[in-house]
Amino acid sequence: MPNNVQIRLASRPKGMPTEETFSVVEAQVPTPGPGEVLVKTLYLSVDPYMRGRMSDAKSYVPPFVVGDVLTGGVVGQVVESHNDKFHVGEFVLGELGWQHYNLSSGRLTKLNADLAPLTAYLGVLGMPGMTAYFGLLDIGRPKAGETVVVSGAAGAVGSLVGQIAKLKGCRVVGIAGSDDKNRYLESELGFDATINYKTVDSLRKAVAAACPEGVDVYFDNVGGDITDAVFLHLNDFSRVALCGQIAGYNAEKVEMGPRLLSQLLIHRVLLKGFIVSDYHADYGKAAVEMAGWLKEGKLKYKETIVDGLEHAPQAFLGLFRGDNIGKQLVRVAMPE
Amino acid sequence: MPNNVQIRLASRPKGMPTEETFSVVEAQVPTPGPGEVLVKTLYLSVDPYMRGRMSDAKSYVPPFVVGDVLTGGVVGQVVESHNDKFHVGEFVLGELGWQHYNLSSGRLTKLNADLAPLTAYLGVLGMPGMTAYFGLLDIGRPKAGETVVVSGAAGAVGSLVGQIAKLKGCRVVGIAGSDDKNRYLESELGFDATINYKTVDSLRKAVAAACPEGVDVYFDNVGGDITDAVFLHLNDFSRVALCGQIAGYNAEKVEMGPRLLSQLLIHRVLLKGFIVSDYHADYGKAAVEMAGWLKEGKLKYKETIVDGLEHAPQAFLGLFRGDNIGKQLVRVAMPE
Repeated sequence: MPNNVQIRLASRPKGMPTEETFSVVEAQVPTPGPGEVLVKTLYLSVDPYMRGRMSDAKSYVPPFVVGDVLTGGVVGQVVESHNDKFHVGEFVLGELGWQHYNLSSGRLTKLNADLAPLTAYLGVLGMPGMTAYFGLLDIGRPKAGETVVVSGAAGAVGSLVGQIAKLKGCRVVGIAGSDDKNRYLESELGFDATINYKTVDSLRKAVAAACPEGVDVYFDNVGGDITDAVFLHLNDFSRVALCGQIAGYNAEKVEMGPRLLSQLLIHRVLLKGFIVSDYHADYGKAAVEMAGWLKEGKLKYKETIVDGLEHAPQAFLGLFRGDNIGKQLVRVAMPE
Repeated sequence: MPNNVQIRLASRPKGMPTEETFSVVEAQVPTPGPGEVLVKTLYLSVDPYMRGRMSDAKSYVPPFVVGDVLTGGVVGQVVESHNDKFHVGEFVLGELGWQHYNLSSGRLTKLNADLAPLTAYLGVLGMPGMTAYFGLLDIGRPKAGETVVVSGAAGAVGSLVGQIAKLKGCRVVGIAGSDDKNRYLESELGFDATINYKTVDSLRKAVAAACPEGVDVYFDNVGGDITDAVFLHLNDFSRVALCGQIAGYNAEKVEMGPRLLSQLLIHRVLLKGFIVSDYHADYGKAAVEMAGWLKEGKLKYKETIVDGLEHAPQAFLGLFRGDNIGKQLVRVAMPE
């Protein structure tokens, strides 16, 4: 059996992570004990929230430990099993290490590769899909005819938020960082308007132009000056689903920005931070509805796939450059 | 009949209003036409939100017009009536001008001076009371044992928020701007701890010390660096009732502050801006409950009363210096 290549956290990044943040280590492939299964990694999910775990600040998930293997969403295949519930050849989803082989005591979800492509379970039917679904529908509560703005619109979550909002009859405005992304959002996903935040002269004017009737729902993946601009156009009784703040994830200390709480007061805005796992109990119902939309062709998605475990660090760094359209994945191996 | 002294908006203030913001004008006492009543002003309510109306920025109430008489909450007495619903001698509450005599077509609420002192209808049983009640109970939703922090704690709204939170079994921490105010909050109103934001070395450390188990509900009347400090101590699933941002009302342009939305995300905070009139339909029920608490001695309140209409501008300016404890009023005349 081959060696078990691992991506470990070499050091805690200050500011933007670099290649030095990661180390690539070769280890022995572990041997499953009683009740354990050995899972071969097929796909890694690469997600912005992992940046938070690289720092030792208190957050909603514990920090990674320096020297340990990084973990995240993984789709894999059982290659050895001492657990009655899992059989060799089965596809599984789990929170597992960035390495070729993981041991698991069975906290895994079996996947049906006939229902949807395996990668969908890391995207539209997985964590990003659930994030879009609950953040938009439970916090944003869009009504037909309302204007929904989503930042990070071409990402795994944002592109689904916009499509679900369209299904609900809303006018949808996406904010993303390239004309290519925006063309994709408008021509393939049906967004009504888009803003390229990197090239626009004034974000504030761009939001005003794209949202002539103001903003009723803002799904925020980004924060920073994009969010400042949207806050200035929130309608009375609008809702803000606070999902990500990637613009600030690499800040070494808290950045300064305009104080805009008065906007939220005057317009009686409801703002709610959330983490997808807050909705864990309702995943089943949501996945059924999302799978239905997917089957009917009402939800589309893209993936940006990098090949090879050793390229996972670069794929992660690319998230902060906006390299990806849709879900960023690393393909580690093909199914056996 | 005497002349009708009026306080008018002389000019829109830039930054902190001054004496030049106001003009004192003598006018004729108006004569009521058919269906109208003439109301003699007894008490004026002096409120921070009026600062917003002095600017011409879009807000939830239209701006005052330069040259016009200022308006606000007024308790008065009917001195002449051509309206069957109102009789001479009756006490009424209305949104009326800062002048000795107002005409009204009847958008007035009759007051029962036997049930509560007349001034209570501008405070604990009026707009500040309703603000405290709905902001705390509908948005904050405090549970027994939770920690509730209120800024502007010695003001008309804040002092009631803290007392209602105590009635709900919470630990209550007040933030105010003088040791006198804080002694009053602790010794007379039963607050568990207080912070003097003007003399404390570190607001952040002071909040940490006063809230060893973090903050579950934050009722914000103030904003600025007080709110920054509280945001750093919000617990998971905490609630922020955004009621006022007086720290920024006189800013000539939007001030800068630390970007803290990540705090709201990580801790899944619900933040909601509100205006008391959003709850207009439920005032009756709330007033009954508040009056009951008042009667049972469970709610106390203080008033800071300035005598004479011509001193209303100074009373208003005093709000921004924190001169008042409890409700700031101007006594214009005694009942006839």
